[in-house]
Amino acid sequence: MSKDIIGENEDVLVFLDRKRTFLIRVKRGQSLHTHRGYINHDDMIGKEFGDGVKSSLGINFTILKPTPIDYAKKMLRSTQIIYPKDMGLILVHSGIGCGSRVVEAGTGSGALTSVLANFVGSKGRVYSYETRAEFLEKAKKNLERAGVLNQVELKNKDITTGIDESDVDAVVLDLATPWEVVPLTSKALKGSGVLVSFSPTIEQVVKTVEALEAEAFVNIEALESIVRRIKVKKGQTRPETLMIGHTGYVTHARKTNSTHNQ
Amino acid sequence: MSKDIIGENEDVLVFLDRKRTFLIRVKRGQSLHTHRGYINHDDMIGKEFGDGVKSSLGINFTILKPTPIDYAKKMLRSTQIIYPKDMGLILVHSGIGCGSRVVEAGTGSGALTSVLANFVGSKGRVYSYETRAEFLEKAKKNLERAGVLNQVELKNKDITTGIDESDVDAVVLDLATPWEVVPLTSKALKGSGVLVSFSPTIEQVVKTVEALEAEAFVNIEALESIVRRIKVKKGQTRPETLMIGHTGYVTHARKTNSTHNQ
Amino acid sequence: MSKDIIGENEDVLVFLDRKRTFLIRVKRGQSLHTHRGYINHDDMIGKEFGDGVKSSLGINFTILKPTPIDYAKKMLRSTQIIYPKDMGLILVHSGIGCGSRVVEAGTGSGALTSVLANFVGSKGRVYSYETRAEFLEKAKKNLERAGVLNQVELKNKDITTGIDESDVDAVVLDLATPWEVVPLTSKALKGSGVLVSFSPTIEQVVKTVEALEAEAFVNIEALESIVRRIKVKKGQTRPETLMIGHTGYVTHARKTNSTHNQ
Amino acid sequence: MSKDIIGENEDVLVFLDRKRTFLIRVKRGQSLHTHRGYINHDDMIGKEFGDGVKSSLGINFTILKPTPIDYAKKMLRSTQIIYPKDMGLILVHSGIGCGSRVVEAGTGSGALTSVLANFVGSKGRVYSYETRAEFLEKAKKNLERAGVLNQVELKNKDITTGIDESDVDAVVLDLATPWEVVPLTSKALKGSGVLVSFSPTIEQVVKTVEALEAEAFVNIEALESIVRRIKVKKGQTRPETLMIGHTGYVTHARKTNSTHNQ
Repeated sequence: MSKDIIGENEDVLVFLDRKRTFLIRVKRGQSLHTHRGYINHDDMIGKEFGDGVKSSLGINFTILKPTPIDYAKKMLRSTQIIYPKDMGLILVHSGIGCGSRVVEAGTGSGALTSVLANFVGSKGRVYSYETRAEFLEKAKKNLERAGVLNQVELKNKDITTGIDESDVDAVVLDLATPWEVVPLTSKALKGSGVLVSFSPTIEQVVKTVEALEAEAFVNIEALESIVRRIKVKKGQTRPETLMIGHTGYVTHARKTNSTHNQ
Repeated sequence: MSKDIIGENEDVLVFLDRKRTFLIRVKRGQSLHTHRGYINHDDMIGKEFGDGVKSSLGINFTILKPTPIDYAKKMLRSTQIIYPKDMGLILVHSGIGCGSRVVEAGTGSGALTSVLANFVGSKGRVYSYETRAEFLEKAKKNLERAGVLNQVELKNKDITTGIDESDVDAVVLDLATPWEVVPLTSKALKGSGVLVSFSPTIEQVVKTVEALEAEAFVNIEALESIVRRIKVKKGQTRPETLMIGHTGYVTHARKTNSTHNQ
Repeated sequence: MSKDIIGENEDVLVFLDRKRTFLIRVKRGQSLHTHRGYINHDDMIGKEFGDGVKSSLGINFTILKPTPIDYAKKMLRSTQIIYPKDMGLILVHSGIGCGSRVVEAGTGSGALTSVLANFVGSKGRVYSYETRAEFLEKAKKNLERAGVLNQVELKNKDITTGIDESDVDAVVLDLATPWEVVPLTSKALKGSGVLVSFSPTIEQVVKTVEALEAEAFVNIEALESIVRRIKVKKGQTRPETLMIGHTGYVTHARKTNSTHNQ
Repeated sequence: MSKDIIGENEDVLVFLDRKRTFLIRVKRGQSLHTHRGYINHDDMIGKEFGDGVKSSLGINFTILKPTPIDYAKKMLRSTQIIYPKDMGLILVHSGIGCGSRVVEAGTGSGALTSVLANFVGSKGRVYSYETRAEFLEKAKKNLERAGVLNQVELKNKDITTGIDESDVDAVVLDLATPWEVVPLTSKALKGSGVLVSFSPTIEQVVKTVEALEAEAFVNIEALESIVRRIKVKKGQTRPETLMIGHTGYVTHARKTNSTHNQ
């Protein structure tokens, strides 16, 4: 319970509306500047999550406790590829849960990494490969902020040169050429483990599926998730005018031991 | 590792293709009958997950370790309302993770319950309300089979009469009249906790959003997820002809403490 | 007005509900047999369109005047590729109207031909190419029944061997390999005329767009139309559960004279 | 043929790319100013449609003959409600063709009017109702420019006070409260004629369907068309990132004579 009283160094999501949210760490003496006035951090200390706080212009903001997806969304701003809708699809099809061991590549800004880390928990582990050192630095900060860095092993390594781990529960790929990694993932995965790959283009999906078939994966499924936001107001209810038409395809499959026997 | 050698009483998903899968518990001396011949359970004992097993007709099946969604899909056969695509959306927006405490209603066959239980893990807890005793019985068996019953408290109670728990991280509703429960969820939730509601019809969404607004919830968002399966084959790639056009809407929102202060 | 009184040899659409409609030609002395009883053609003679007619079991059917799309839907049953949603998209982007001259290939059962013929009218003309004689026979009957055969010239010819017409307003393709015909269409079309191509797979679209670019077509656009049917009932409104997920892509483009100058 | 040589007073669509098109009437001595230089009208006179024309900066534009949808798109800029995808759906379900008589309300900027007028042709007629005189003025100019004003009768009248025409083939509604007009349309339509209504919100659809059922219309169908634009490039093919998520619903139905008999 005491955890829910906001103290210094607590992360808070200061919420005005869906498009205006501020993810900050509370620091005594500091202030948050918004277009609707500034908010003194001190005014939040001692409050509970869910409470309101007024800006210098008298506008009411709500103090929310950041969820894993709140952290991930803030990380996404720099890369903007995988959306919550895709993360949800990846999660349910990955077969992971608390305690799972997952290989991921590439790390990028760490958005998907943070969500995977949240769901494998403190007993699980995400091994995340990334070739670009500057992205790893950024990801490290993001994961630390999201409080999940302990569950992640960041690796500055090109996954196409080899996967160090074995018997992992799942491999999650967000790479330009996922098909090149499929044979390696087959070795890294437990028997019947899950590979999930996210790709923006249809040609990537075709090549990935061909590689999965060649490696005797089964239950291969390529999906696209389209999420529509509904504008709800009595008498004026309708899907929103503009929507995200496409982010990418989620392909998942299960490893078999067939190729090892051949 | 030894866990991956299949022994008696192990749950296995015997896989032929995406539409023909059999979720069974291995019992010495028993056999699984399929349209493509029968499989002796004894032939699976001692194998590893991911291995193949031949039926009496010489057809090769793959032995997969059931994932949480494999269990959930089998449970869904009786109610068929919430699909994996919706579970994914519910998961990412619920803010839960290993150790979370979640209230759910109604239990139904336990499909969504099992997925939530998987993701809160052994340190978390799902409190699941259901008025119909026969559903609870069925759900209990399903959850036991899925190995997550320890993480679930099944409650034969009408959630509209009150929620026993407090300070929970999330409330997940799959009810005909979710709006009736919104004031109660507001009390049960931690400050800034998440309510997620799944409803098939747009009128349910409108009433639920109105109730959430009346209770001063913020970040209210109503979403519909449409998932298309892509038929991937070089030179013949296209979305599948028939698809699930609609299952339901996912509405989520964050609790504020505003109403308690008023 | 007199045309609206039903006489012998009139085509009528006998309507029970959306899934049970019967497109017949009224013949004195004959009867229409349905699962809900039989209807004497004589009972319809002298009635007006929009009137009801009772079957032998006392069930009320409505007598509708067939629209172009009613005819087309009945033709579609044998091929089932292009749906009304696609025809609508083809129509608006084709730039045609009363009096237009259109080349089409292949004819198939004549469904799209009949819709095009309806919209070019008696002063326009559809030149429809088809290699398979048996399809042409079927199409001829279908077009005669739909009352638009006078506006159509059916050609038993492989369009890849040449287009006889020139200065046409639009070319509409429903072929397995439309890209092979693109250079020919460029010659057949008027300057700034429209090519529209319908293809089920994405690889066909990629090749067609490449061919259009090579022939200096402009305003090239590839579209997919997804139409959802809404189940409307107060308090229970929602998109239908099952839907057609994909039929094909509609690609359209405008011919330039650039290649002739090069 | 001579019609295809561009002369003075000819309408041309000067095309750079899909987003930069200019619909102008050629006037000797004038010039068209674009971000990529200006184009002398005189340079277009004597050319053929489909030819290129260079701007003062040496950029090549293509001279296209405007199609009905090109005109309609330009009109839409002021109201932006009904899109080509919706017009296509309205067209195929309206049952109209060359020679049809159609009642429409409201006229708005005349975009849908112009498309309907194009498809009923010179022997058909569109009776278009609009209460706001300033819109009628604008529509008149638009329809004149599109060359279809002769086929349209613009009426400065509130359609809810009565429809002057009878025995029309179709009624097309784009009104805020279409359900109020349903009983009137039933009188104006021929037996088995078609009503088509376009509405942005789901509540409008529910009320319209209820009104249609009360007036004994049959074959009532409410549809939503979602059109995705595909970005086609070998190796990089995918639906576009941003799309129009919703414009409105198209409801269509057939008039019966049942209410007149009751």
